[in-house]
Amino acid sequence: MDRDKYVLGADFGSDSVRVLAFDTEAGTVAAKATCRYPRWAAGRFCAPEENRYRQHPLDYIESLEACIKEIAECIDPYHIAGISFDTTASTPVLTDRYGTPLSLTERFMNEPDAMFFLWKDHTSIKEAERINEVAHSWKTDYTRWCGGSYSCEWVWAKMLHALHSSPCLAEAAYSWVEHCDWIPGLLSGNTDPHTIARSKCAAGHKAMWNRLWGGLPERGFLHEVDPLLDIFDGHLYKETVTADRRAGTLCKEWAERLGLKEGISIGSGAIDCHFGAVGAGIAPGTLVKVIGTSTCDIAIASCDDIGDKTIKGICGQADGSVLPGYIGIEAGQAAFGDVYAWYSRLLSWGISNGSADVARETILSRLAEEAARLPLTDKDTVALDWFNGRRSPDADTTARAAICGIDMSTSPAHIYKALVEATAYGSRAINERLAAEGVKIEKTIAVGGISKKSPYVMQTISDILGTPISVLDSDEACALGACMYASVAAGIYQDITEAQKRICPGTGVEYLPDPERHAIYDRLYMKYMEIGRQQDIMQSI
Amino acid sequence: MDRDKYVLGADFGSDSVRVLAFDTEAGTVAAKATCRYPRWAAGRFCAPEENRYRQHPLDYIESLEACIKEIAECIDPYHIAGISFDTTASTPVLTDRYGTPLSLTERFMNEPDAMFFLWKDHTSIKEAERINEVAHSWKTDYTRWCGGSYSCEWVWAKMLHALHSSPCLAEAAYSWVEHCDWIPGLLSGNTDPHTIARSKCAAGHKAMWNRLWGGLPERGFLHEVDPLLDIFDGHLYKETVTADRRAGTLCKEWAERLGLKEGISIGSGAIDCHFGAVGAGIAPGTLVKVIGTSTCDIAIASCDDIGDKTIKGICGQADGSVLPGYIGIEAGQAAFGDVYAWYSRLLSWGISNGSADVARETILSRLAEEAARLPLTDKDTVALDWFNGRRSPDADTTARAAICGIDMSTSPAHIYKALVEATAYGSRAINERLAAEGVKIEKTIAVGGISKKSPYVMQTISDILGTPISVLDSDEACALGACMYASVAAGIYQDITEAQKRICPGTGVEYLPDPERHAIYDRLYMKYMEIGRQQDIMQSI
Repeated sequence: MDRDKYVLGADFGSDSVRVLAFDTEAGTVAAKATCRYPRWAAGRFCAPEENRYRQHPLDYIESLEACIKEIAECIDPYHIAGISFDTTASTPVLTDRYGTPLSLTERFMNEPDAMFFLWKDHTSIKEAERINEVAHSWKTDYTRWCGGSYSCEWVWAKMLHALHSSPCLAEAAYSWVEHCDWIPGLLSGNTDPHTIARSKCAAGHKAMWNRLWGGLPERGFLHEVDPLLDIFDGHLYKETVTADRRAGTLCKEWAERLGLKEGISIGSGAIDCHFGAVGAGIAPGTLVKVIGTSTCDIAIASCDDIGDKTIKGICGQADGSVLPGYIGIEAGQAAFGDVYAWYSRLLSWGISNGSADVARETILSRLAEEAARLPLTDKDTVALDWFNGRRSPDADTTARAAICGIDMSTSPAHIYKALVEATAYGSRAINERLAAEGVKIEKTIAVGGISKKSPYVMQTISDILGTPISVLDSDEACALGACMYASVAAGIYQDITEAQKRICPGTGVEYLPDPERHAIYDRLYMKYMEIGRQQDIMQSI
Repeated sequence: MDRDKYVLGADFGSDSVRVLAFDTEAGTVAAKATCRYPRWAAGRFCAPEENRYRQHPLDYIESLEACIKEIAECIDPYHIAGISFDTTASTPVLTDRYGTPLSLTERFMNEPDAMFFLWKDHTSIKEAERINEVAHSWKTDYTRWCGGSYSCEWVWAKMLHALHSSPCLAEAAYSWVEHCDWIPGLLSGNTDPHTIARSKCAAGHKAMWNRLWGGLPERGFLHEVDPLLDIFDGHLYKETVTADRRAGTLCKEWAERLGLKEGISIGSGAIDCHFGAVGAGIAPGTLVKVIGTSTCDIAIASCDDIGDKTIKGICGQADGSVLPGYIGIEAGQAAFGDVYAWYSRLLSWGISNGSADVARETILSRLAEEAARLPLTDKDTVALDWFNGRRSPDADTTARAAICGIDMSTSPAHIYKALVEATAYGSRAINERLAAEGVKIEKTIAVGGISKKSPYVMQTISDILGTPISVLDSDEACALGACMYASVAAGIYQDITEAQKRICPGTGVEYLPDPERHAIYDRLYMKYMEIGRQQDIMQSI
């Protein structure tokens, strides 16, 4: 009975990979391991001042190997039934004819443009503008499913930027692959660009793949964006798959390298926040908010409810991306915890370098304490949260933040309060848009760093949304979601809903809205919206 | 020939009095002394959290005595021809039948509402609102000469607030007097409310006195504002005087107390910034900017040029207030250096209390260094300077500041730069209004703390105004102006213009505008104006 009772879920984050081993018989996490990406941790290949963030494929391989070896020391690897993976996205790389990332070939080993472009890399702004320009005048608006605006964080913009960077790369390139598709392909021994399993959201939605127009954008469109994109013609794919499907089975070479059994199930990959939403217990009517430096807000709707209707101003909407059989709806705020980090950096600027890091943590907790004691009035300072541009609703990467209604009596805590409220107003704007577009939300589950560490922020969100918010009782929603998918791909459970019932850890702390504060926030939110409209006008001057 | 060659100028500031002795034969300052107000320095009678700022009359008397005794040890007091005074305004006090401030009577010795209400006291907001309400529906709009809005910083609002505070005070009150009129009255032995000399601006303009309507507002108006104001009926004045006229001569009692000759000239008082403007060399076509925590912008125009026309949205306009024979025009920004002080407090919040004061000075100089190195672009952060409400143009004490166009890359120096520019845009808004209303400005002279200490700020003002700015070569413009007035009242010089020629110290450093930066600032200023319009709309939501 002990046979094949473990599933592994591997969650590739921005800085490290975390692997969980879930015991499906005991219903508990049996082992876990985390490993930072060594080159990334050393700051190699990046230029933050240009928003250039690249990751070397060896970082992924070496850290995954280290984690699995650590896991194999805690549990009997012979009883592992399968493994699934999630990664950040869109995090694509140029490949050769065999699907090998160009940075794994001798010639481009140290070439940043031949490496994975991390999701937050913003070097491809011009390429994204060009894509939008062509899309908005093309007979089919391929940006229709991404809120009418193609992001510089997505694959076509990034890969075109890589091709632009040097003729040598353009010459060597044959196809591209997303991080979450490459890892399962690699482990199952098939990275061939023509046949490797491509995921619904990373390779689907973010590449403007849609079944309504028969897959990826047509050849003529891509050529019109830039003739360099002809390179990929015929080297990509027609279909995308949901993550409950196997990408393959573990090949001999990698079974040996990892110390696992050959032939165990390898699930198709997906995007970290989608697995996180599943891990947190997403269902129709439930919104999962991943609240960290930014937010990712995920909901699902049945095809019967929204069908082929696009949700205005919401950046992501893809059939089967989160849960097979449902439309995955993804919105988000480009800056959330980042806003508080910015402010704590501002306030610690006068502090000598050595102690600034420690000071920043202290500053944020002192600010939260003081802010919580401030009265809430209709005359309070109101801020906008667009410190990284605006993602949802109505994406605009050039949108910027503002702080309004300051006077001599405005204290550091008043501004912190306004910034926390601004991030919560941003959340509310997303919820209101979802509601206006017919997506019903009856329950909100929060995951991510902020949801655990910042009760003041969480209470403010609840007061401003006017809804209860439950916090998931785990820090590992993504890796748990990967375990759920691994268990279905391995055939242990019948579907994800069953896997959720068995594996989902449930919620702990619940924040309840204060009705009096909510009434005041209703009015302050109107100011936030008005300031936002004005800023949008200003931006165009 | 040594006889009566000295004149004394006494400048009562917010915190201390400064006295200069000017040697009119040598053309040099012969002695100077400064003394802080002792009770004020100890924080007595004030409540900053309520914006309540009161000063005890004994503070003025004791500090003046100390200064004059110190002066008398440096020069032969026998050769002093006369003395003139300037003070802050509107800084009024309730008096009894004899013109004695109620706080100098036994009963109200420790009663803050019986003391002088310092100019920046904001406890009388409701009273000012009531005055405006009645004025705007009265057959004569008495606020016509103060830009259509009566300020809570002015005498009627403050004295009504004092009467409201307690029935005992209302019972004891007979009249009121401004600080700048009371001191000359006291020293010349006549404080009788009916006959004491009343100054053109403090007792004139700020009390809505105007010759067009025969002096102070009519009895019925004041009664309509509040029947308590009937107390003052028949206890005030019909005329106001310019400061080149004598209030009287030094009486025996005060000659003995101060160690001066009985019978020397006592000039009529005036407001500090007006004497400062004269001391700095004001003339038709010259704007004197007193740049400190706030600004006071002073110009004069001949009656031939503007006659009885009111200058739209400019708070002060009074015949003879600055220079006899000219219309004195006074505008100002309610926060200037205060804005930088606010910001340095924000940035030093995280620093342990003991070292925060030192840190704030260091912070401002580091910020100026960094800000000066930043590029200037059309996408820069733009702020509004209304941290203390807006004084000119278009006074609105409820207006508030804002900082717009912030993103994750916005550094502390970017915000400092935006705040400095905001204060300079505020200056430009005043200049543009003056120009639009026909007041010609050909030359700008700066005085005050910022003009000496902050080259970065001064250069920014010049770049934004697009005009050269000369800095007065003295820190004592007000006291020098008082010496000029003292010399005319004492009969040494024929008029103020002659006194200016003999006494004015001239200018030193000159800031010249950079044409390229000015062109960019022309566009950024449009954004500032637009954000201002939006904030005005927001304020009303």
